[in-house]
Amino acid sequence: MTDHFTDLFFHEHPPSSVLIEDVQPMVDNGRYPVKREVGDSLIVSADIFRDGHDKLAAVVRYRERGTGVWTDVEMTFVDNDRWAGTIPLDRYTTYEYRVEAFPDVFNSWRDEVEKKHADGQELSSELIEGARILREAKTRAVGDDIASLDTLIAQIEGDDQQRAVDATGTPETLALLYRCRSKADLVQSEPVLRVKVDRVRARYAAWYSMFPRSAGTVEGKSATLRDVIAQLPRIHEMGFNVLYFTPIHPIGTTNRKGKNNTLHALPGDPGVPYGIGSTDGGHDAIEPGLGTFDDFHDLVAAAKDHGMEIALDVAIQASPDHPWALDHPEWFHIRPDGTIKYAENPPKKYQDIYPINFQNTEWQALWKELKRIILHWVEHGVTSFRVDNPHTKPTIFWEWLIAEVQRDHPEVIFLSEAFTRPKVMKSLAKAGFTQSYSYFTWRNFKQEMTDYLIDLTQGPEKEYMRANFFPNTHDILPVILQEGGRPAFISRFTMAATLSSVYGIYSGYEMCENTPVPDREEYLNSEKYDYKVWDWDREGNISDFISRVNRIRETHPALQEYDNLEFYQASDDNVLAYGKRSADNGDIVVILVNMDPFSAHEAQFELPVDRFGLSVDIPFRVDELLTGETFMWTGRTHHWRLDPHVNPVTIFSITPWLHQDYAEPCY
Amino acid sequence: MTDHFTDLFFHEHPPSSVLIEDVQPMVDNGRYPVKREVGDSLIVSADIFRDGHDKLAAVVRYRERGTGVWTDVEMTFVDNDRWAGTIPLDRYTTYEYRVEAFPDVFNSWRDEVEKKHADGQELSSELIEGARILREAKTRAVGDDIASLDTLIAQIEGDDQQRAVDATGTPETLALLYRCRSKADLVQSEPVLRVKVDRVRARYAAWYSMFPRSAGTVEGKSATLRDVIAQLPRIHEMGFNVLYFTPIHPIGTTNRKGKNNTLHALPGDPGVPYGIGSTDGGHDAIEPGLGTFDDFHDLVAAAKDHGMEIALDVAIQASPDHPWALDHPEWFHIRPDGTIKYAENPPKKYQDIYPINFQNTEWQALWKELKRIILHWVEHGVTSFRVDNPHTKPTIFWEWLIAEVQRDHPEVIFLSEAFTRPKVMKSLAKAGFTQSYSYFTWRNFKQEMTDYLIDLTQGPEKEYMRANFFPNTHDILPVILQEGGRPAFISRFTMAATLSSVYGIYSGYEMCENTPVPDREEYLNSEKYDYKVWDWDREGNISDFISRVNRIRETHPALQEYDNLEFYQASDDNVLAYGKRSADNGDIVVILVNMDPFSAHEAQFELPVDRFGLSVDIPFRVDELLTGETFMWTGRTHHWRLDPHVNPVTIFSITPWLHQDYAEPCY
Repeated sequence: MTDHFTDLFFHEHPPSSVLIEDVQPMVDNGRYPVKREVGDSLIVSADIFRDGHDKLAAVVRYRERGTGVWTDVEMTFVDNDRWAGTIPLDRYTTYEYRVEAFPDVFNSWRDEVEKKHADGQELSSELIEGARILREAKTRAVGDDIASLDTLIAQIEGDDQQRAVDATGTPETLALLYRCRSKADLVQSEPVLRVKVDRVRARYAAWYSMFPRSAGTVEGKSATLRDVIAQLPRIHEMGFNVLYFTPIHPIGTTNRKGKNNTLHALPGDPGVPYGIGSTDGGHDAIEPGLGTFDDFHDLVAAAKDHGMEIALDVAIQASPDHPWALDHPEWFHIRPDGTIKYAENPPKKYQDIYPINFQNTEWQALWKELKRIILHWVEHGVTSFRVDNPHTKPTIFWEWLIAEVQRDHPEVIFLSEAFTRPKVMKSLAKAGFTQSYSYFTWRNFKQEMTDYLIDLTQGPEKEYMRANFFPNTHDILPVILQEGGRPAFISRFTMAATLSSVYGIYSGYEMCENTPVPDREEYLNSEKYDYKVWDWDREGNISDFISRVNRIRETHPALQEYDNLEFYQASDDNVLAYGKRSADNGDIVVILVNMDPFSAHEAQFELPVDRFGLSVDIPFRVDELLTGETFMWTGRTHHWRLDPHVNPVTIFSITPWLHQDYAEPCY
Repeated sequence: MTDHFTDLFFHEHPPSSVLIEDVQPMVDNGRYPVKREVGDSLIVSADIFRDGHDKLAAVVRYRERGTGVWTDVEMTFVDNDRWAGTIPLDRYTTYEYRVEAFPDVFNSWRDEVEKKHADGQELSSELIEGARILREAKTRAVGDDIASLDTLIAQIEGDDQQRAVDATGTPETLALLYRCRSKADLVQSEPVLRVKVDRVRARYAAWYSMFPRSAGTVEGKSATLRDVIAQLPRIHEMGFNVLYFTPIHPIGTTNRKGKNNTLHALPGDPGVPYGIGSTDGGHDAIEPGLGTFDDFHDLVAAAKDHGMEIALDVAIQASPDHPWALDHPEWFHIRPDGTIKYAENPPKKYQDIYPINFQNTEWQALWKELKRIILHWVEHGVTSFRVDNPHTKPTIFWEWLIAEVQRDHPEVIFLSEAFTRPKVMKSLAKAGFTQSYSYFTWRNFKQEMTDYLIDLTQGPEKEYMRANFFPNTHDILPVILQEGGRPAFISRFTMAATLSSVYGIYSGYEMCENTPVPDREEYLNSEKYDYKVWDWDREGNISDFISRVNRIRETHPALQEYDNLEFYQASDDNVLAYGKRSADNGDIVVILVNMDPFSAHEAQFELPVDRFGLSVDIPFRVDELLTGETFMWTGRTHHWRLDPHVNPVTIFSITPWLHQDYAEPCY
């Protein structure tokens, strides 16, 4: 029945009585790694206990995956049988970790002896046992410790009980016995767990999404990558550090879509960048209208000079003109008549797109080709990828692809456009995606926003999913932006940039572009189907506001963290009050947002000044970071008014007022 | 780095894209079984999904542990990618279960065809694919199904598309294709999980705890097991069905304790029953003063005649006079001078008790002897054991012992006296104890009681821990009983018997015995150290009340369930309002308790009549089960007064008022 008990009886030694339970953090019992960023610490905790009163010791062991040497970090008792230890994470890599616990023989003995000694009991029997423990410890001692143990044994075996007890309790003795301690009856947590350490940009980034062909100034003509270079100062000035392009590859002509998603393109229509592949090449090529690889290299370099990196779009599908369609029809779904199946969502048909069959008989060649494509762009300087519709491809494929790419390129970031059901979205994050699009795009009201953010930043998913907050995308113009106009653009931007540490906008946002296809959450005259020329300085633009918020993010480390969000009570249902703090309260930022873009609201709100490390009865300093105003406030309860046409949002920095009394006696 | 991906590439077939996550119920990722009782159903649920829109199918497979044949139960989609299936649990045994999921090829195809057909699309290509799916299904068909599939293939390959589509959607076709369906690309949940099915007594029982030597009528002399037989009608009349004895084994004389735990016994002092073992024998013997094995057999039989079973105490420790101390000193802790160590909790010493060393070098012989002891009593008719201080012995020992005993005797119940830290208590329950003592004994106030019960009955521990509620034990006379007197005895009894489905009292409770050792939660003149003669009918006794409550438990199946507890809002902080319902609302019991034993309280309370399946505006019937009063109530809000000296508690049975309108036309 319980087979391991039969096995157990073949062992000479009895099983250890130490138990390790509920090791955290852990995702799906170790099936997937947790995620952190370089420079972080990983606090590993577990319930550790055994029967009776004997003392225990425990360590967290960790090593870089694939290397042999474990490093031990001592765990300490926290409370209620919970222990914790901290692993430093100083490399982009995957670390393995596990917990080990074992009886602390020497300290159990010392504890008993001290209590009996304090009670005045005779200890000769206990001291003999102590000497036995020390002799056993000596078998592990090296160098000077051997002599130190001999001295200690002599003291314990001497005639002076007081001296013997004292000798066993000195800091030097404790350190000595720690070095030589026994790990007999050790128990290891199962399975070995993993933490994937990404660069900080995985957690703290501002994405700017654009169609490179719309970066120019000539109507009806493709802009080039060199036109994009000309845009870099503007985008940099706004404070973005990841510049993401919709696909830059050659676009098919067969069944090409026309303007506003019409079924047939007119001459001169450039087609949808997601209809990838033509006689000019496939996923590893650049659409000739955009330029050459030389142009691309210059763009990557110029972006780097502006502190930005380029993110490409990974849309694994093909136009009927893609080289794969000719060379590898077996990678697609084949109809009984031998032709390749186009994309369908019955009864809808998408004749310009061939989906890939990830589980075809030649799947290994296909998967390797897809890996080659990613590595090809990595070699050309791309370090971030936004993946289109990953939820229509097998999760196991992404798990494989991302692991393969990050093995040699741990710096590469994958953003999952997983606008899909919650569990599918989470499974992609578990499988390896560095970041994920989220439902933020559609969360408009106070309660739903609060609930969602508490899930994201305090629920189990905080260990593996970083939600990248986009208030708009080239596919989605949400109703709140259509209806709410400029105040909504300001408040939604502020929430994206301060609720999450990683966020992005799709270009046009800075001009409050919000003309929809009627009754749809889509842009009218979308760039998806056309070239476009923008007036970046058009009236009503919020570029300066964006720039200011990004500067605030840069100067306030609290806003660069993901899971330090906390909400505060506010008396009005349209006023969202929240904040972020650094762990030492050295940086405290509080944000109020009027979620109603139409009318002014005012609210009484509560600041947890005690958690801020402030006194409830001593004034603290409040700097409003958007206007530059400064206030002195006292206590928990405050009041603020937010007018969508004046101040849809407010951002406070809170600092203690430093008292300087006479610290020295004054003569 | 990710080794299984290397392996993956050696396979010809691509990995399945189906994912199974979060299988429930599950304890510590399957390290321990969940617990249920015979006659229950086990609802197994999991998140099951894959990329894209194709349909899936899933089953729960189960089998009796150690047998080879799996039975499949179909899972159905619930919501949000969650699926569930139900396993019937009709034997006392351990079942294994796991989830299997796989693409539903035929229904995915049918869904596509139906949508396209409704849209008026031409389907010849799809029908060729359909015929291919049917031919593949035929490889699994047997009997008449082969011909049925041929007929269906002919219809699909015929000229009439309408007829072809119709033929694929009939109930007969769906059933046929279900029988022949493909499980290609199947995924299995890991690991295989277990459910331990106990008898109903594991969940629904009333324990009566006593010292058999105090069942008599002669002062200063041990009562016998035959005296206990004489008590059975009285105990049965009160409604108890498990009769638990403190240890009945011979008691040591060396360092025997005297009355009221004095250090030295006087002549005639019987000693503590936990000082087990003398020249008369050890754990497998009966203290001669109590009688013989013949007496014991008669007692077991008489108890059975009264619908009761006998539970013995398992206290694994020895008096210095125990045969083990002579024959197996190696099973104990040995001092440097060769003597056996007595029990200590430094600086306290317990010279009358030798603790066992479970991890001595001869541990296997020891463990086997302990197993023999349990099986010895099982052979003598004992089916329940109360285990003393299990938390001072290795959890792994209990896991082994209980599994070994229950392998051949699945009916045996182990109650853990784990009055220890919460995680240790839970680990013993996980390791196999059928029931556990709990902190109920010390939970006196409304909020702490509510919080604790919500944890027990709605938290993860409900899957493996059944808390047996004792308002007192022979070791514990809680302050609330000392101070609160008879009203407290009534309210605490009612809570024990209705908050949990399994509870017990220590004898004397029915007489409201509450004289403490001053400033301690212990009984003065405790039976632990003496013989005692009781006046069972003494004034103020609550035997009739106990009897009545146990009858209510017997006639109300809702009170026989453990995890169906729900709390209701009540306006007074001393009034606890709660209830239990059968799943079909066929039995609804509502209880109000005044937790203040000193003063009357009245409260407005809210009944969730909609969840009760009642209308808010039609009266329902309320029977007060202690007084026999009946009321007609309407709506959610009601009011009640509880006077500790009149009605410290109230128990309502709620039933709908059955309307009988004319159902037939009346001529």
